[in-house]
Amino acid sequence: MITIDDVRAAAKSITGVAVRTPLLPSWAIGPDLWLKPENLQPVGAFKVRGAVHALLSLSPEAQAAGVITHSSGNHGQALAYAARVVDAPVVVVVPEGAPTVKIEAIRALGAEIVVVAPAERESRTAELAAERGLTIIPPYDHRHIIAGQGTIGLEIVEDLPEVEVVLVPVGGGGLASGVATAVKALAPGAAVIGVEPALAADAADSLAHGQLRPWTTEERYRTMADGLRTSLSELTFAHLRERLDGIVTVSEEEILTTVSLLARSARIVAEPSGAVATAAYLHHRGELPPGRTVAVVSGGNIDPALLAGLLIAEELDT
Amino acid sequence: MITIDDVRAAAKSITGVAVRTPLLPSWAIGPDLWLKPENLQPVGAFKVRGAVHALLSLSPEAQAAGVITHSSGNHGQALAYAARVVDAPVVVVVPEGAPTVKIEAIRALGAEIVVVAPAERESRTAELAAERGLTIIPPYDHRHIIAGQGTIGLEIVEDLPEVEVVLVPVGGGGLASGVATAVKALAPGAAVIGVEPALAADAADSLAHGQLRPWTTEERYRTMADGLRTSLSELTFAHLRERLDGIVTVSEEEILTTVSLLARSARIVAEPSGAVATAAYLHHRGELPPGRTVAVVSGGNIDPALLAGLLIAEELDT
Repeated sequence: MITIDDVRAAAKSITGVAVRTPLLPSWAIGPDLWLKPENLQPVGAFKVRGAVHALLSLSPEAQAAGVITHSSGNHGQALAYAARVVDAPVVVVVPEGAPTVKIEAIRALGAEIVVVAPAERESRTAELAAERGLTIIPPYDHRHIIAGQGTIGLEIVEDLPEVEVVLVPVGGGGLASGVATAVKALAPGAAVIGVEPALAADAADSLAHGQLRPWTTEERYRTMADGLRTSLSELTFAHLRERLDGIVTVSEEEILTTVSLLARSARIVAEPSGAVATAAYLHHRGELPPGRTVAVVSGGNIDPALLAGLLIAEELDT
Repeated sequence: MITIDDVRAAAKSITGVAVRTPLLPSWAIGPDLWLKPENLQPVGAFKVRGAVHALLSLSPEAQAAGVITHSSGNHGQALAYAARVVDAPVVVVVPEGAPTVKIEAIRALGAEIVVVAPAERESRTAELAAERGLTIIPPYDHRHIIAGQGTIGLEIVEDLPEVEVVLVPVGGGGLASGVATAVKALAPGAAVIGVEPALAADAADSLAHGQLRPWTTEERYRTMADGLRTSLSELTFAHLRERLDGIVTVSEEEILTTVSLLARSARIVAEPSGAVATAAYLHHRGELPPGRTVAVVSGGNIDPALLAGLLIAEELDT
């Protein structure tokens, strides 16, 4: 497993490329709530942290040969952004059905796009890597990726040393693994709680049973939180089992109303995956420890028509 | 006029109350553009900086007696927020027609609200102050307010010492006066350019004629950028005449499409007033010096229905 030293090394490598996001005191949502707005990263998601660190950790030769990944969107954008910074070739394999807005953003960064059926993402990525000599940079099952995402936890404790609860979205588990590693090392008294959509709750299921219980693609693709449709890996499960203090699940309705609330009250654009931690704060307080709480807003790449619809729905409701 | 030392003093007094906003590299909008997202402040606008500094500069007795201001909204919210931090009574005089969302936000912070006709804002404020022994903290015609807003310029140069152009909205001129003071002191080679709605261009008019030319309330209230409907004061005009390198105006259409673009591409919610600087970058490049440009996004308190409408309009357009 990774350690706080790995996270510290990642913090060094991403300086000046990833944005040092502030903590936003969000009194209008809750008196003891701060948001960590990772939607403000260059590609609109925290994933730029891990991607930059993973790419900068490669040898110059491997960087020059190029990298490849599969991603529902945000990791693909992040790797394309990182590759652009170091001028490396990059191929992104995306599943059919991924939001158009995300695919277009990856293409605009200069990446080559390959569209495949969701179940074939990993096999096709491996084939292309072998054919072309590319290094695979997976979205989360990778020590440097986890360490990179962990820099969020490091910054949270730097900015709010007295933090008591950190709420972090769980998809593949890279973000939660990294954040839990950093927070538990630097603020051992703080609780780190994972948050998942109830419709893609394979991590909650796995943690409850003490073993990895992957859900089917069909099951996981029911949630609108497209960034959280992925399953844990053995590596991320090992981190979460040891370092996470708990996990809660949120409904689709809770996620969508929170997207609207974040735009209205915190003036940030969050995608559904990015809203789950704040949704847990709003709707599942009884399942959470009390105290000064930070919710990680992991990304903001939402379809503008969906955001508009949610703002109008809320308006009609009030 | 204020100096860089006044801005430095303000920077000290607002630490830990105002958010230290990052600069956001905004490659999707322009390769040499950074945004300074002041919509992320606790009240959704830069005004918390000046309000906090002005209030903390009062004697303990004056703080305990209370403060009063008139404001189209954001300064009112900011002063209410600052007063809440130091537990001081606060009265906010707002003009009829101010956005409901802003008035409600001020009330939620515990301020007393007094609604008056726009032309009577100043006289009624003075009356109430005299009656109740309150200190008037005006929205911009005040040295501490200007110094507080100037901390934005200080942070811009800290984060991007090689900045070449700073674009800053001009309403009453407090923000632009403070930012120009800081930037011209710390990065004398950088140009500071004011941006106004063409429908409320009293600053451009005044600067062109070398004398203060106030526009009528009726003229200024034509713009949707409700935060920029105010006129310069003698004090802010003096700062701008000496320290601003130029001023450009933007149309209502340019402002509104930029609000939509900021939500889509930078994932931040800007109000019309907050979008003018970015609109100038997008639509008036020919009138601006070239180079690394920072656009100040001054606030994000927009009616959610308006934001939704703009997102949908853009969707239908593409």
